[in-house]
Amino acid sequence: MYISITKTTHPGTLLPSDQLGFGIHYTDHMFIMDYSDEKGWYDPRIVPFQNISLSPAACVFHYGAEVFEGLKAYRRPDGEVQLFRPWDNMERMKNSAIRLGLPVVPPEDALEAVKALVKVDERWVPSDPGTSLYIRPFLYGTDAKLGLHGVHTAQFIIILSPVGSYFDNGMEPVKIIVETEDVRAIRGGTGEAKCGGNYGASNRAGERAFANGYSQVLWLDGVEHKYVEEGGGMNVVFKINGRIITPMLTGSILPGVTRRSCLQLFEDWGMPVEERLISVDELFEAAANGTLEEAMCVGTAAVICPIGELTYEGKAYTINNFQTGPLAQKLYDTLTGIQWGTQPDPHGWTCKV
Amino acid sequence: MYISITKTTHPGTLLPSDQLGFGIHYTDHMFIMDYSDEKGWYDPRIVPFQNISLSPAACVFHYGAEVFEGLKAYRRPDGEVQLFRPWDNMERMKNSAIRLGLPVVPPEDALEAVKALVKVDERWVPSDPGTSLYIRPFLYGTDAKLGLHGVHTAQFIIILSPVGSYFDNGMEPVKIIVETEDVRAIRGGTGEAKCGGNYGASNRAGERAFANGYSQVLWLDGVEHKYVEEGGGMNVVFKINGRIITPMLTGSILPGVTRRSCLQLFEDWGMPVEERLISVDELFEAAANGTLEEAMCVGTAAVICPIGELTYEGKAYTINNFQTGPLAQKLYDTLTGIQWGTQPDPHGWTCKV
Repeated sequence: MYISITKTTHPGTLLPSDQLGFGIHYTDHMFIMDYSDEKGWYDPRIVPFQNISLSPAACVFHYGAEVFEGLKAYRRPDGEVQLFRPWDNMERMKNSAIRLGLPVVPPEDALEAVKALVKVDERWVPSDPGTSLYIRPFLYGTDAKLGLHGVHTAQFIIILSPVGSYFDNGMEPVKIIVETEDVRAIRGGTGEAKCGGNYGASNRAGERAFANGYSQVLWLDGVEHKYVEEGGGMNVVFKINGRIITPMLTGSILPGVTRRSCLQLFEDWGMPVEERLISVDELFEAAANGTLEEAMCVGTAAVICPIGELTYEGKAYTINNFQTGPLAQKLYDTLTGIQWGTQPDPHGWTCKV
Repeated sequence: MYISITKTTHPGTLLPSDQLGFGIHYTDHMFIMDYSDEKGWYDPRIVPFQNISLSPAACVFHYGAEVFEGLKAYRRPDGEVQLFRPWDNMERMKNSAIRLGLPVVPPEDALEAVKALVKVDERWVPSDPGTSLYIRPFLYGTDAKLGLHGVHTAQFIIILSPVGSYFDNGMEPVKIIVETEDVRAIRGGTGEAKCGGNYGASNRAGERAFANGYSQVLWLDGVEHKYVEEGGGMNVVFKINGRIITPMLTGSILPGVTRRSCLQLFEDWGMPVEERLISVDELFEAAANGTLEEAMCVGTAAVICPIGELTYEGKAYTINNFQTGPLAQKLYDTLTGIQWGTQPDPHGWTCKV
């Protein structure tokens, strides 16, 4: 794939790490590629970061024709920049596009584009501990017709955002509330795709939780409102009475790259994992009788986020004395060690840009 | 509300009715209004129809922060232009926005904006039989932050599209297939909101049906895959053994304005209606034993669309000899008579622009 490059004439100023935040500032450039049924994918280009200009009738504004990915580039101690399991993200974007009826970006082209863009904006990859360059590939339909007729023209874009450490002082346990009114997803729907609709459906509950002092919600399944599915944008892992349990991928749960990595690490460590349905009753019985030793959210943004307090139907339970547990700590240290290149990478999860 | 108006210097050329199609051509102007948490809704304006320019990080591209409406302006025989139950659309847009956590456009302001825009572009309202001006109000989040943090800035836009008659030669029955793999919506989700995510989830099945010669799908409920919910973008009404049945609004079905209007007409005509769960088994048993007298989709675009053939799990059943039935015809004649102002409007459903 030949990617044309137009460099900005007004390069931006790098910010100190403690002012980065998450997904607020963007780098100098972006990647764009267009699609039509006739031409396929065409005109891959890196251009200065700029607004998107679309017809107000474009189907991305009306019919939720949009999927995205999230991954990071990390600055290694030797100064080089590496990605973490980017193949998995590009493969998932393919699956998301298929579910939504959007044209598929060949995963190898998507990865090539990510690497090319990160290379052009490499100076934006921060190096302070815990910082990284968040990479947001996204794909949407642009057909300017209001009839329901499928997606025949599209755009694939990648933007980059230097991000600070998710936690200011090491990992900090968070409060989470089980959502009992709104439903995020259902098997047969789009729950396992990374698409806008899932987040549109989640937004109200997330905001309600946030306004009440919780960092995010814990979603239940949409059929019986009984089984734990995932957090607000992250998968979940529990340790109950010595057993490690994570909700199985039923079709309505996002197959997270961090989740998959945790499962591999458990295997490496000889720790059996139960990937199965886990009911909210089982979880809260364990919380009540003290056998819920650890609970955590796992995802690209925070890596591992210990859950210090879980609330369900008005009852709050503290987990592990609101402390980061040893399992969360070990996962965090190992994963971040591999991601930032300070530990060996036995599974070949990283690749240099 | 003071709406500033900037007229185009390049007015477009009107097309003959038979070249209009649906939602392909747009008028000279559009309405835009901005929102921020600090300012509320501000700067309502009518401007020349133009592209939207947004940051690539805007949450409408990533997190499905979008709702819309669809209604029409009709040219009366006396030359005046009228709307059909626009209050219902503006009220539903409010409910959709609440579900998605988007800022609410006050319904009276939204209606005022619709009227002002239609007035400016009144010459675009076609007058040939069956033609109308389709009105598409839509509302989306513009926050250019990738963190999940709610919607704090937004835009409300209205565009207009002159549309031809949905049917070339009176009503034409269509073929419909029951979708058994993908799920559109679930109670607690966003099925009763008019939002992008529902359509994103529906797109693949709709395209698959279309490619196989069906005009659209018939959706089943997401929990048991057992109860009929709605067509691909339209509600459904059945007549079985003399009884009129329509799926009840369970929370995952769009509360259609045309559906509501049909229910009122049935009441006017002294015809009892059963608003209840109707299983796909009941429906196909009726189709098999010949008691399914009529089936139809009802919605703003086509008004009434008779279903001539229904397919489920590979079996196709012809309904009413693939002819438009008397109930469909009576609904169509009455509704279109009121909409185009050729019949009395006893319920005050229309309002002049």
